[in-house]
Amino acid sequence: MTSQKIISELVVPNTTKIVLLVLDGLGGAPMHPGGLTALESAHTPHLDALATHGICGLHDPIAPGVTPGSGPAHLALFGYDPLQHQIGRGVLESLGIGFDLQTDDVAARGNFCTVDENGLITDRRAGRISTEKATELIELLRPITLPDVQTFVEPVKDYRFVLVLRGDGLSGSLTETDPQKLGAAPLSVEALSSEAEQTAALFNQWISRAREILADLQPANMVTLRGLDKNPGLPSMEEIYGLRAAAIAAYPMYRGAARLVGMDVLSTGETIEEEADTLRTHWTEYDFFFVHVKKTDSAGEDGNFEQKIAIIEHVDETLVPAIVELRPDVAIVTGDHSTPALLRSHSWHPVPILLWSEYCRADATNEFSERGCARGALGRFPATDIMPLALANALRLAKFGA
Amino acid sequence: MTSQKIISELVVPNTTKIVLLVLDGLGGAPMHPGGLTALESAHTPHLDALATHGICGLHDPIAPGVTPGSGPAHLALFGYDPLQHQIGRGVLESLGIGFDLQTDDVAARGNFCTVDENGLITDRRAGRISTEKATELIELLRPITLPDVQTFVEPVKDYRFVLVLRGDGLSGSLTETDPQKLGAAPLSVEALSSEAEQTAALFNQWISRAREILADLQPANMVTLRGLDKNPGLPSMEEIYGLRAAAIAAYPMYRGAARLVGMDVLSTGETIEEEADTLRTHWTEYDFFFVHVKKTDSAGEDGNFEQKIAIIEHVDETLVPAIVELRPDVAIVTGDHSTPALLRSHSWHPVPILLWSEYCRADATNEFSERGCARGALGRFPATDIMPLALANALRLAKFGA
Repeated sequence: MTSQKIISELVVPNTTKIVLLVLDGLGGAPMHPGGLTALESAHTPHLDALATHGICGLHDPIAPGVTPGSGPAHLALFGYDPLQHQIGRGVLESLGIGFDLQTDDVAARGNFCTVDENGLITDRRAGRISTEKATELIELLRPITLPDVQTFVEPVKDYRFVLVLRGDGLSGSLTETDPQKLGAAPLSVEALSSEAEQTAALFNQWISRAREILADLQPANMVTLRGLDKNPGLPSMEEIYGLRAAAIAAYPMYRGAARLVGMDVLSTGETIEEEADTLRTHWTEYDFFFVHVKKTDSAGEDGNFEQKIAIIEHVDETLVPAIVELRPDVAIVTGDHSTPALLRSHSWHPVPILLWSEYCRADATNEFSERGCARGALGRFPATDIMPLALANALRLAKFGA
Repeated sequence: MTSQKIISELVVPNTTKIVLLVLDGLGGAPMHPGGLTALESAHTPHLDALATHGICGLHDPIAPGVTPGSGPAHLALFGYDPLQHQIGRGVLESLGIGFDLQTDDVAARGNFCTVDENGLITDRRAGRISTEKATELIELLRPITLPDVQTFVEPVKDYRFVLVLRGDGLSGSLTETDPQKLGAAPLSVEALSSEAEQTAALFNQWISRAREILADLQPANMVTLRGLDKNPGLPSMEEIYGLRAAAIAAYPMYRGAARLVGMDVLSTGETIEEEADTLRTHWTEYDFFFVHVKKTDSAGEDGNFEQKIAIIEHVDETLVPAIVELRPDVAIVTGDHSTPALLRSHSWHPVPILLWSEYCRADATNEFSERGCARGALGRFPATDIMPLALANALRLAKFGA
C-alpha cells in the first residue's frame, strides 16, 4: 500500500464529492459447484450501468486468505492500515453508540448471558433479551463502584452493552471472558502485560459484583466481556485527506468505526430508504459520504442466499438511483468483506468493487458481479488503495514529484 | 505479503488435507512469436477439469522480473519470505541428502572439476563423473583434518558433494570459489565480514589439501565450493501453520528445502508413479503434502520443448488423477518458477497456479495454461500468499479482528 503519509502530502483542496456505498458482506460464493453467487444472481440494472461506465476490480480487505472482522475491514476501506491499527470491538461499539470515549479510557463490549447453577454458560446471549430489558438491568449495574476509577455502563442493542473504565494508568492489554462455547464458565480477565494487571483486577472486581447483582435475574444472570481496548486516537479523515466526511449507518459498530476516523455520524433510520433520505438531506454539507447497508451481511450469516439476492436488488432499486441522482463526482460500491451464504460467516474471498467517475477510464466489464470484477481493469488490490483511488478520481491529489 | 506471524496467530485446528503439487519450472514461453507454451500445447484434461472447478492465477516467486533459484522459490511456496531468508545451496543440499546439519555448522555445495597444468578450469563438472566415482574420490578427501573443527564430506549426485565444517564460532558470510567460466582458476573463499575470516581460512586450507590429493586424478583433479552458509533454523510449518507436513520429492535439493521447514521427507522412488504410490501410502498420516516433479524443469533446461509437453501430459494422466481420487480438501498445482525451453534456463515469468477447494469461488478459466491463468480471478500475486490461501480454503484460519 501507499502510506497515508504520502497520500496526505499530495492532498489538494477541491469541492468534489465522493460517495462510498458499503454493502456489508457483499462478496459471495455459489451454493453449489458451477452456480452463481448472490450478486451474480441478482437483477441489478442500476449497478450494472455504473459498472459499464465505471471501472471494476476485487479488493482484499486485509490480505489474501485472511478473513476480516468488521472493524479492521472498515478501517481498511477508510485507508487506515488494519494490520498497524488493531482496535478492540469495545472501542468500536462505544464510539458507535455515541459514547464520548476519551484517550485513556478502556472499553469492553459486554453480553448478558445465562449460566446454570454451576456457573456454566447455557446461553451466550441470554435468550436475546430486548434492549428495554437490558436497559433495566444496566440500571442495576451502574451503581457498581471501583477504587480510583469511574465506570460507565451503556446499552447497545438487545443483549449487548458497553462497559468503560476511566482513570489514570489503565491499560487495554487484556484478554476476553467469553469462552465462546456453551457448558464452560466465563473466564477471568487476564493481563497481557504487567502494566495491565491492575486494570485486569478492576474488571474482574466489576464482574464479580455484577454476578452477585444479576444472580437471581434469569435469563440474564451473568455477563461476559469482549474486545477490551483503549481508543487508539487515530488521525481523522479530514486531517489526512482534507475531506469533511459523514457516515450514514444504522448499526452501532459501523457508526463507531466512522467516528474512530473522525467522521460526523448522521442520525438516520434503520431502512435503506431512510438512509437515502439522510444522504439527500445532508448532501451539501460534506465532501465524503460513507453509506452502510448491514442486511447483505446478515442474510449471508443466516445462510439465506435468496434473502441476500433480495437485499441487493432492493439497494439497486432505491439507494443506487438516489446516489446517482445526486451526481457525485466519484461513486464507489463495494463491501467490507465477503459473507457467502454457503459458509454462513465472513470469508477470505476478495470483494467486488466498482468505481465510477468522469475520469475513471472505464473497462470492458458491464455487470457488477464477482466474475465481472475479476475481469475488471482495477485488478486485484488491497482495500487500503481505495481511498487514494477515490481522491485521485475526485481530482484531490497533486502530482508526486516534479 | 502478510507476515507469517499474523497468519500463525489466526491458525485454528482442523482435519482438512492440502496437496501442493509443484511441477518444477512449470511456466514457459512460446518457441516462436505467436506460438503456444508447452503447458498450452499439452493435452491435459485432468488439469483443465481442476481449473474449470477451481480458481487460477499467476504468482511471482520472488518479485516481478526476478528469476528465482530453486531454494528461494520453494521457500516462497511454503510461505517463507525468500528475501528475508536467503539460504545458501550448501545448506539445502546437505539437508537434501539427509545430513543432520546442526545450527552452527557451515555447509558448502562442492563440485569436482577439471583444471589444466596452469590451474585453469577446463570442465566445471569434471566430465560429469558418476556418483560411484565421486564417492571413491570423497573417501580420499574425508581424512583431511583442520584445527579445532570437524569436517564432513558427503556425496550428493554425479560430480556434486557437500562439505560441512562443524565447530565453535564459524560464520557463513563467505564467497564462492567457482568462477562460473572456463579458462579461469578457482577463486579463494573470502570472508564477507570480519568475523568470517577464520572460517574462510579453514575452507581455503581444506581446498588446498584437496587440490594436492586430487592433483593426478584426471578428470576430477580439483574442486569448487558454492553456496556456503549456515542452517538458518527456520520455524517449522507445524509451528507456524499447525500442519503435519510431508514432502514427496526425488531430488536432494527439494528434500532439503522441505526439511528446512520441518517437513517429514518421505522415502520415494524416482518416477512419478512411485511418487503417487508414496502419497497414497501416507495419506492418512499428514495434513499437508508437498509433491515435487523435477522433470518439467530438466526438459526446459535442456531446451526440449516436446519433452516438457510429454512430461506435463504424463503428470496429467497419472499424478493428477491419483491426487483427485484421494479427495483432498484443497489441491494446488503450480511451479516453483518458469523454465522456458526457449531460454534453456529458469526465467522471471510469473508461474501458472490453480487452486481447487469446495469454497474456492471458481472463476471463468477452464484450462490450465499461462493465458488461462492470466485471466484467472486469483490475479497476479506473490508466491508467499499461496499458503494463506491454502489454509483459508482448508478452513484453517480464524477471522482477523472483531
